[in-house]
Order: sequence, then C-alpha cells, then structure tokens
Amino acid sequence: MSPRGFSASEFRSRLTRAQAYMTRHGLAALLLTTEPEVRYFTGYLTRFWESPTRPWFLIVPATGSVVAVIPSIGAPLMARAGVADIRTWSAPNLADDGVTLLAETLKELVPSGERIGVPDGHETHLRMPLADFERVRELLGSRKLVGDAGILRRMRMTKSDAEIAKIEQACAIAGRAFARVPEIARAGVPLEDVFRRFQMLCLEEGADWVPYLAGGAGPEGYDDVISPASPRPLAQGDVLMLDTGLVWDGYFCDFDRNWSIGRPSSETREVHGRLIDATRAAFEIAAPGRTAADLHAAMSKVLGGETGAGRLGHGLGMSLTEWPSLIPSDTTVLEPGMVLTLEPGLDTATGVLVHEENIVITATGARYLSPVAPVEVPVL
Amino acid sequence: MSPRGFSASEFRSRLTRAQAYMTRHGLAALLLTTEPEVRYFTGYLTRFWESPTRPWFLIVPATGSVVAVIPSIGAPLMARAGVADIRTWSAPNLADDGVTLLAETLKELVPSGERIGVPDGHETHLRMPLADFERVRELLGSRKLVGDAGILRRMRMTKSDAEIAKIEQACAIAGRAFARVPEIARAGVPLEDVFRRFQMLCLEEGADWVPYLAGGAGPEGYDDVISPASPRPLAQGDVLMLDTGLVWDGYFCDFDRNWSIGRPSSETREVHGRLIDATRAAFEIAAPGRTAADLHAAMSKVLGGETGAGRLGHGLGMSLTEWPSLIPSDTTVLEPGMVLTLEPGLDTATGVLVHEENIVITATGARYLSPVAPVEVPVL
Repeated sequence: MSPRGFSASEFRSRLTRAQAYMTRHGLAALLLTTEPEVRYFTGYLTRFWESPTRPWFLIVPATGSVVAVIPSIGAPLMARAGVADIRTWSAPNLADDGVTLLAETLKELVPSGERIGVPDGHETHLRMPLADFERVRELLGSRKLVGDAGILRRMRMTKSDAEIAKIEQACAIAGRAFARVPEIARAGVPLEDVFRRFQMLCLEEGADWVPYLAGGAGPEGYDDVISPASPRPLAQGDVLMLDTGLVWDGYFCDFDRNWSIGRPSSETREVHGRLIDATRAAFEIAAPGRTAADLHAAMSKVLGGETGAGRLGHGLGMSLTEWPSLIPSDTTVLEPGMVLTLEPGLDTATGVLVHEENIVITATGARYLSPVAPVEVPVL
Repeated sequence: MSPRGFSASEFRSRLTRAQAYMTRHGLAALLLTTEPEVRYFTGYLTRFWESPTRPWFLIVPATGSVVAVIPSIGAPLMARAGVADIRTWSAPNLADDGVTLLAETLKELVPSGERIGVPDGHETHLRMPLADFERVRELLGSRKLVGDAGILRRMRMTKSDAEIAKIEQACAIAGRAFARVPEIARAGVPLEDVFRRFQMLCLEEGADWVPYLAGGAGPEGYDDVISPASPRPLAQGDVLMLDTGLVWDGYFCDFDRNWSIGRPSSETREVHGRLIDATRAAFEIAAPGRTAADLHAAMSKVLGGETGAGRLGHGLGMSLTEWPSLIPSDTTVLEPGMVLTLEPGLDTATGVLVHEENIVITATGARYLSPVAPVEVPVL
C-alpha cells in the first residue's frame, strides 16, 4: 500500500517548477484560494473546506517559500503540514475577513508595479467573496491581480509517481467495492438503498470518504447519470450503473460499472460491448504525443454517436474532474503522468448507457489504474 | 418521516419573496452560480457539483419565472425539477463555456441600464472562472453586475417548516449513529477506523451521504477539530470527539459528541460539564428578538475563555455552515425559523474540548433539533 502524505522534496519540486513558470510569465506571486490549489503546494488536507464560511489564502512567491494567510482555526494543521510562515486572523470577522492581512502580506512579498497571478481560466473559480476580492485589488494599488497564465492547470495535469500511487489506491478500493455489488443489489431492492449500501462498501474497503456517487437503473438504460437515487426498486431487465468518486489520502478515482438485473437484452449486450470496445480503442492509442482530441476521435469512431454528456472523458486527481477534456477541440498533448478517465456513452431506445475506466499515460503508452470491466455485462 | 422534495408552492413563495427584495433594492435580476443558490430556487439536487469543470447559471428575474442557463448534461434533471425555461450549451466548450449564452439571456431578461445582483458578501463566492465573469460583464454593456444586497443571505437564513423538517431528519439520523458509537470505538481501535466505521453507521441509519466528518482523540482533549483521522489507536484516558455534517435530502445536520475511553479525569468531567452548561445558557435565552451576539455572550460567560475557533456557533441548512456567526460583532436579530449550532469550546491542559447542538428558533423561544447530550461524558 502507498504511504500517506508526500515527502518534503515533492513539495520543494512543485514550488521550484511553479517559480520557473512564474519567472517565464512575469508573475511575482500566485494567489491561491481553493482546496486543491492550497493543498497542492502544502499538503494541507482537511474536510473543513466543506464549510463555505471562511476564506483561505496561499501565496506562492516567485522566490522563497509559500506563505499561508488563514483563519486561526487552521494554524495548527497548517504548521504540521510544514508551512513555516503562517499569518492568521480570527475568522469570521464581519468587518475585515482577512482582507487587510492578505493585502499587507502581498505588499510585503511583491514589489510595487509587479503582477500577482490568480487562476482564472477554465475549471477554476475564486473561493472568496467577490466584494472582498475587489477590496484587496484596491488595497494593492500598483500591484496588479492578473490571471495565472494556466500555471496551476499545467502543473496539476501531470501527476508525480506518488500522486499516481494514491489514485491507483483509490481505484483498487473502488474495484473491491464494485466486486461486492452482488451482495447489495438484486431485483426488488430500491435504488436508494443500493446507493447507501454501496457507499458503505467503499468505506469498508478502505475509502477515507465518498464525495461522489452517481448512477441509475432502468430497462436497457438509465435516464441520466447525475440524478440522486430514486426509491424505485430494481426490476428484472434493468441495467444498473454505479459511478463513484471516492477519496484515498486526498486523491480521487472516478469510474463506473454496469450490471444487468437478470439476463441482458441483446441491445444491452451490444451497447455495453461497444462501450468497452470504445475504451479499448482509446487505450490502445493513448501515448505521449497524442492529444485529448485523438482519444475522443478513437472512441467516437467506435460509438458512431454522441450523448448529451458533452465529452468522452477527462483528467482526475485531487478533484473528481480536472483538465483536459476528451473533446474534439481540446488539443492538449498527452504526457507521461497524465491521469485520465475514458468515459464513452451511448443513447439507447429508453435512456443512456455509459462506461468508464481510469488510465495513466506512461513513457511508452498507457496503463489501466482501474480493474478493467469485462465485455459481457455482468448479471445480478 | 418528512417527505422528500418540496411543494411547488414553496418555490413560488421563495421566488415571490426574492422578487419583493429585488424591487426594494432596484435589481432587475439575480445571477446565481453556486449549488445551494441554484437549488434554493429550483430544487435541483445532484452530487454532480463535486465536478468543478462546468459552470451552472440560474437567473432570477424581477418578474416572471427563473431561467436556467446550464450544460446540456443537466437539462433532464433540471426539467424534472420543474424549471420550464432551460437554455443549454454542450459543456465543456473551451472557446465559450456558456459565456455568450449567459450574456444573451441576461440581455433578453434585463432592460438596458438596469442592475443584476450577484451574491458577493460574507460566506459567498462566484462559482465560474473569473476571466469568464469579466467577459460576461463586457458583453452586458450598460447592464451592470453588482452585489445582491444580501438577499440570498436574508432569505436562506430563515428556514421554512419543510426545510426545518429535513434538518431535523438529518439530526435524528446522526443521533442514532452517535448512539451506536460503542459498537465501533474502544481502546486499541485506530482513530481512522473509527472515522470509517462511523460514516458507515451514518449511512446505515439513513444518511444520503456524509460530506463532513471531523473529530479527534487525545488525553483530556484533542489537538484540533479539523484534522483528518490519524492511525493512532484510541488509548485509556483519551477523550474521543466525532463531529458530523451528514445530509438528508439536501439538508445538513452539524453536531458532535464526546466520549471518554475509560474513566474520565476530573478535568475532562469538569470541562465537558461546562460546555453543556454553556449550550444550555444559550438555549435558554434563544428567542426572536435576541441576537447572534447575545447567544455568544451567554456561552462566553459560562466558559470564561476562548479557543482559536473564532466563534461559538453558526447557522446551518443547505450548507454545513451558514450565516449568522455567534460572535460579539454579529448583531443579526434572531427570527423564528433560524437554525443554529451552539458550539462552545474550551482549551484544556493538552488540547481542546468542543461540544455542539443544533436548535431552531421558534415563535416563543427555541427547540433542540439534535438529541441533547448528557452532562456526564459517556464512557466507552
């Protein structure tokens, strides 16, 4: 089993690479506000981000070490994460919730007239009140808040061996839970009970927590893949799908499995087989130098159709979904260490069927992180 | 048991109240981007928000019905939620991820020169890429994006009877799980196993999912209340604390319980009793007309000290934590329907002890939603 946490050298390496990018893009610092961004440079791991009350700030200067500007409640854990420079305020403070402290810290670290990068591109957001961000901007004067030039995207998209090991551990846990689905799902069991019991299986098999579970069940397909579980009991002829993003040591897996309740129809068998073939087609060409769009094209050719999902896979890691997207317009070049889902879907007469595996790009091709599903849909 | 979902009249009533506030504040529309904001006006409930890839937009116009501007993957579920006007795009679109569609929809609904409110105050954030928000701003021309004048805060802070019933259901589920902790926790069991097993108990007792679990264990107190579980086995003399925010039908509970592993020390007994006394002191004065600050003062007087947590309780509902904060500077006047945590804490010789209950403000006082903990810390 992979050990928890990361070595200090991993964080030093991330910092060094970020600083090289910052120099190239003329940024004197990065200002980070979201959970994965802060954790990427510190290892600061807590479920406390579920509370939207308090903002958290991490400053990555172009030289030197990171500086955390955070609510005092987080100081002991941030110190244990190895951050030496921690500035705190007693949050919540309705009059000034870290605004002055953040601005003063930035002014200390960033020379006048220089630029501070804030992630502002696709798949990012700013986790602080918008009015407070404008106040920080005013207090900074000649120091300008600008975009981060995609630095966080570029860095997080390619995973280290230690990160990949954590994702693989999450995949193995989910694989064991999927293997036990026959214990909890059969005709007559309400779908909402299957959801509840499946999350328990994920925990029993070693998940730290289960942030994401979706799925569906219906005759030859399900309505969509994002709805909460209904109380409708599973019925003979249903296809059941469960798609989980469970977490181990802060890293996600994200893949699904299908089952047939009783003997599958010929359409279900055919469509399921085609989905498996699509993932195989993408897997076979996945290698450094190919693009995200190439993987989309390989699957699309096998599928011969599209659903309303908008893409056929994506990156994953510290978040359930990350860059890139497997769509025709995403020309991101694949590199060793990129972790991707292959997630083809097809419309059926009565709904949709989807299938998903997780892979990592290697020096020469790709490797499955999830235990590969069989061509024949398993029968419950 | 409370039924799932809400009546159509509940959403009509929320819309009518929002529109009255908008008229008062001179706003022609609200633009909403986060999960609880969108769900508040639609009932759109999905765990798919765990994926940070796609932005979602809901427009609440000053007259007429809400308009959803969302990725096509969400259209079937949004339609089932009862939203009639749904505009979709195939997301992700790297060139234009809903920006033009959102701007055009806003221009159709909002006259030139009018103002559109975006939540920008304490405990809010904007869930879309910052660069895209600036592009929308430019496309809107004379229509101005401004703050929401605290409308969402004011509305969500006071819960309907149907909302309170859901929170009470979540509290009852957590109460049953806490009552079963003796099944899973004893000297020698690693804290991380207790965390895993406790989440399973929450699910078995009826939680839809368990977004939040924190806790700690140590001799006469724990290090802090936000760290992940350690592999350290529970030992005689430890105080164990578990604090859960589980969800039932989209609503949270948020309370904790303490246990002593073996006989508690006199300090543990004394501190635990003082924490219970503090919650009682706040509960006794909690009533319409009192303020959040009054509840803080009532607890503070019993405690005679502060920890680094920053407050002694907070609102809860669709999010784990919501406005108001029980701090001296929060003069929010309590109203019937406000749901609050009372969460006093005290430093001990070796760490901290915290206790938490959930209450609702009634017409004449307050009512506990969580099953009240005993004065004496239970022994495992």
